Formats: sequence, C-alpha cells, structure tokens
Amino acid sequence: MSKSSNKQKMYLRSFPLTTINDIEKIKDHVESNNIVILRITPLANKDVKQLKDAVQNLYTFAESINGDIARLGEERVVITPPGVQVWRGL
Amino acid sequence: MSKSSNKQKMYLRSFPLTTINDIEKIKDHVESNNIVILRITPLANKDVKQLKDAVQNLYTFAESINGDIARLGEERVVITPPGVQVWRGL
Repeated sequence: MSKSSNKQKMYLRSFPLTTINDIEKIKDHVESNNIVILRITPLANKDVKQLKDAVQNLYTFAESINGDIARLGEERVVITPPGVQVWRGL
Repeated sequence: MSKSSNKQKMYLRSFPLTTINDIEKIKDHVESNNIVILRITPLANKDVKQLKDAVQNLYTFAESINGDIARLGEERVVITPPGVQVWRGL
C-alpha cells in the first residue's frame, strides 16, 4: 500500500433529476464518497408530488449517512458525503 | 496528534460574486481546502468585462493549485481544491 492510497479522489458530479428512479443512482454516488449537485427542474416541471417525495427521501438519506444536503437556489440541491458539510454561515 | 486530525472537515460554500474584489476571499476558501460555488449573476449584470477577468483569474488559480473549476448552468461556477474533481463524463 502506498501512501497515496489515502488520497482517494472525490468527484463533484452534476446531473438532472428526471424521475424518482434516479434516486438510487444518486445515493450510490454519494455513498462512493462523491458530491452530487442535482438539477431538480426536470422533475419539478413534470410531477411536483414526485419531486417532494424524492427530495424528502434524499434528506432522510443524507442524514442517515451523516452527510449533508441543501438547496442551491431554485433549481438545484446539493448532497454531500460524510466529511463534507454545506456552509450555513453568512 | 490524534488520528482524527486527518479527518479535517471540508465545507461547500455558496456565495455571490458581486465585485472582482471578492476574488481573494474565494481563493482563501479554496486554499483552505473548501469548495466554493459562486453565483456569478450579480457581477454579470453589472460589468461583463470584470466578470470575464474574474473568471479567467479563477481558472488560472484553480489550475495553479491543482484544483478544478467548471460552469454549473448559466448562473454558477464551482471551484474545488486539490483532491476534488468535477466529473465531466456523461
């Protein structure tokens, strides 16, 4: 094992939420220690009820893994793995 | 030194770019191993030339520290420290 094995690359990945079926893929990315920035407008324009369920599901997920989640303007939600926290100061 | 000192918290911080003078603050945050998500519209609406200079400056900076930088839709730019890479796949 080289020392560099401690330095696993983290990715920040942006993609659209088009259906509630995207949820598992999103969770997989975050569980693999990556940050996901989700553009929620595609699902928002299609089915607000499904969007609410999806976002609620992701809030519960983020909490359960000790990650973080926050809105980013009107169109996006960011979800982080443990060790990355959304800054809520001023 | 405890083992947990290796687990320094990383922050993801979102803020608006209102003037080119914000640049140094942004660089400080990224150099402190944080991710910055910059909403560029305030400066875009004020002075496009200054915005171009600021963004060019941040691209050079991100490259120089071995971090990463990318547009996030029309309104935002994300800048990451070394070890965090913006995913450019499909």
